[in-house]
Amino acid sequence: MKQISLVCTALFFACFISSCGAEIKNKDSMEVEVKNEAKLLRHVVIFKFKDEASEADVNKINDSFNALRDHIPVIQDFEWGLNDSPEDLHQGFTHCYMLTFKSEEDRDSIYTPHPKHQAFVSSLQPHLEKVFVVDYWTK
Amino acid sequence: MKQISLVCTALFFACFISSCGAEIKNKDSMEVEVKNEAKLLRHVVIFKFKDEASEADVNKINDSFNALRDHIPVIQDFEWGLNDSPEDLHQGFTHCYMLTFKSEEDRDSIYTPHPKHQAFVSSLQPHLEKVFVVDYWTK
Repeated sequence: MKQISLVCTALFFACFISSCGAEIKNKDSMEVEVKNEAKLLRHVVIFKFKDEASEADVNKINDSFNALRDHIPVIQDFEWGLNDSPEDLHQGFTHCYMLTFKSEEDRDSIYTPHPKHQAFVSSLQPHLEKVFVVDYWTK
Repeated sequence: MKQISLVCTALFFACFISSCGAEIKNKDSMEVEVKNEAKLLRHVVIFKFKDEASEADVNKINDSFNALRDHIPVIQDFEWGLNDSPEDLHQGFTHCYMLTFKSEEDRDSIYTPHPKHQAFVSSLQPHLEKVFVVDYWTK
């Protein structure tokens, strides 16, 4: 009888430990959900490079833009790609980048004046024909 | 001695059950990670409305654009917002919408020709001054 009682106690702990895991898991899911529903500030940057810009120049720019995340942690997310629209409504622009911030302050007071961002902008200028920028808060 | 052995066995099961939970959790995280890393097709649509377009016209358009998701399930995600960029590089455009698809086929063969989308485009035309569209695969 004492043995059964001991086994039951141990199994109770097994269930307890297991249910703790489940609770932690639910908490994680909840956090992900809350994060997904939070409003985010998108910063959409669209480039057309000069015809003289080499593939190496453009690749270097893309890598440098992507690398800003490592230096400026207020960049919550970064993605980019080449224009792929079959509609002819892109005014010749070819490269689209989307950065995500949590606040205008992060964008204006930390990202924009950051020395790494400023250096990137300077390195970019000789190769750019035109730029289009639009930012918005997600709804 | 036998009791200690029984407790050890039960505790072994406790650890086993607990580690199973951890494994399942890791599998979930892995799936989330894989999903996040999957390439997505972004469809960025930017509008400037005519000065004559009333607030009611614009609100109706925003609601109709958002509602397309209910009718066209290949739209994986939809978000939009008003331009908020302090840089003057937006050419007067004011409304930015981002739709997400999983494939060019979903966009070109299902979304674009869909009667609900076509009706939306027709309802839009009288109020639009200009449109800018750029699509890209996320990297």
